[in-house]
Amino acid sequence: MSDQAQIAFLGTGLMGGPMARNLLKAGFQVRAWNRTAEKAAPLAADGAVICQTAAEAVSGADVIILMVSDGPTVHQLLFEQEIARAMSTGALVIDMSSIKAKEARAHASQLAALGVAHLDAPVSGGTKGAEAASLSIMVGGEASDFAAAEPIFAAMGRAVHVGPAGAGQLSKLANQAIVGVTIGIVAEAMLFVEKGGADPAAVRQALSGGFADSTILQQHGTRMTTGDFVPGGPAKFQVKDMSNVLDEAADLALDLPLTHIVRDRFSRLVSELEGGDKDHSALYLELLDRNGLASQ
Amino acid sequence: MSDQAQIAFLGTGLMGGPMARNLLKAGFQVRAWNRTAEKAAPLAADGAVICQTAAEAVSGADVIILMVSDGPTVHQLLFEQEIARAMSTGALVIDMSSIKAKEARAHASQLAALGVAHLDAPVSGGTKGAEAASLSIMVGGEASDFAAAEPIFAAMGRAVHVGPAGAGQLSKLANQAIVGVTIGIVAEAMLFVEKGGADPAAVRQALSGGFADSTILQQHGTRMTTGDFVPGGPAKFQVKDMSNVLDEAADLALDLPLTHIVRDRFSRLVSELEGGDKDHSALYLELLDRNGLASQ
Repeated sequence: MSDQAQIAFLGTGLMGGPMARNLLKAGFQVRAWNRTAEKAAPLAADGAVICQTAAEAVSGADVIILMVSDGPTVHQLLFEQEIARAMSTGALVIDMSSIKAKEARAHASQLAALGVAHLDAPVSGGTKGAEAASLSIMVGGEASDFAAAEPIFAAMGRAVHVGPAGAGQLSKLANQAIVGVTIGIVAEAMLFVEKGGADPAAVRQALSGGFADSTILQQHGTRMTTGDFVPGGPAKFQVKDMSNVLDEAADLALDLPLTHIVRDRFSRLVSELEGGDKDHSALYLELLDRNGLASQ
Repeated sequence: MSDQAQIAFLGTGLMGGPMARNLLKAGFQVRAWNRTAEKAAPLAADGAVICQTAAEAVSGADVIILMVSDGPTVHQLLFEQEIARAMSTGALVIDMSSIKAKEARAHASQLAALGVAHLDAPVSGGTKGAEAASLSIMVGGEASDFAAAEPIFAAMGRAVHVGPAGAGQLSKLANQAIVGVTIGIVAEAMLFVEKGGADPAAVRQALSGGFADSTILQQHGTRMTTGDFVPGGPAKFQVKDMSNVLDEAADLALDLPLTHIVRDRFSRLVSELEGGDKDHSALYLELLDRNGLASQ
């Protein structure tokens, strides 16, 4: 995909906005659309063509990037607003939204029937990663489509081809399951050392660089023992992500016991302990509650 | 503690041997003793005085380092062989063995009654870390004793003072709990992406550097999906370590649900699935078994 490629970018919000800006910086031509038009407008200053409808944006585009909230929204755009039919044969859809793997697989096969290629390419790294063009991009789909899209991904972060259609979404879900359960055990470790009389900050320092170390131990561990639960990643999204893992696991007839117990505890944090809008490190509060302890 | 300090080193096995050698390299005088004398003998070539009894080693020593298998062995040496009575008033015992926190606290107070100071200073980093003088050393005890011992610790690795007597052991236990549960969720993530059709090695690469990343994801995750369970850290020790966490947690009236469920699953791996001498990453086999799947 040369930097002469015409890219339609659908969904230029908190994540999509800076991602589209980085494509423009790299020399790509971008036709931008957002449901709320004022979120697309600032990209005009960076050289984007602002479109009033999604169909207008995709018309004549070589690559259509989606960065929207969920699978039903992707489906609605592609197949109910019928922008898929407005695409050129041979076009490539890169769906960077975080949606269910089975939805991604269905979109890939429906688009294939129209002669349009598809990659599922969810990201991690947050708005900071979007702005710094340092996103981790997990890509499912055909290897040849991935190869063609590499210059586009390179403008937004670091992409890895992880398997066929849906595999990018599976990787993102695996990422979220690891994050959720790691928060759970870091909470136990922090509570354990603190109640045992050790200094949790010193313990985090002592453990740094060893097998128990992680960004979650250092960052989320600090949030727990200092009581700073301003999000970050809200607990309600952690419930959604881990429920998506369990849905997909059920389709694969897999029992994932730690993911299950931690999803249920995040649910309890949200539904019984008013933690939905707190950072996901607030699972520490659920652990305190379970132990009959009040937060400091 | 100047490098003129006389150090007695009790327990010069796989870990203690290279640790004592690094003290000699740093210019300390070391009087070495080991229950099996031939494990101490090679240190003579490095300048150690080899002693026939533990009491002989500690006589006149300023600092007594212990690196033995467990708490009862430490207790037996200190108080049944009565080497504590052979120590000079004002001497400092540095117990680098991994034992229970409550045992460490008891040793500290019993030694204090004899005018002998005590630090609990368990390590992580394995034989590689012992040889490279890059151990993580988690130290509980009086700040002034820690300060005095810093040159000694510096010859063996990186020490952090984490709190009062027992806090070093608590930190080591917290480390082991995090390691065990992280292995558990990495196993779920690897099985999930593999059964879903993604390439686990590519997924590990895609997740590297993000919030889900850890040495355990990269090293133990690779062991799981390649079926390499040569230890490393045997599963039977993981059971012992996590049981020690739960014992200590019970004394603190703490419920640590993830530590509990993962300890029980490591127990099942050891008792029902012949996994005791396999690497602790073999918890993946327990997850396969629970899902009615055979290992590859």
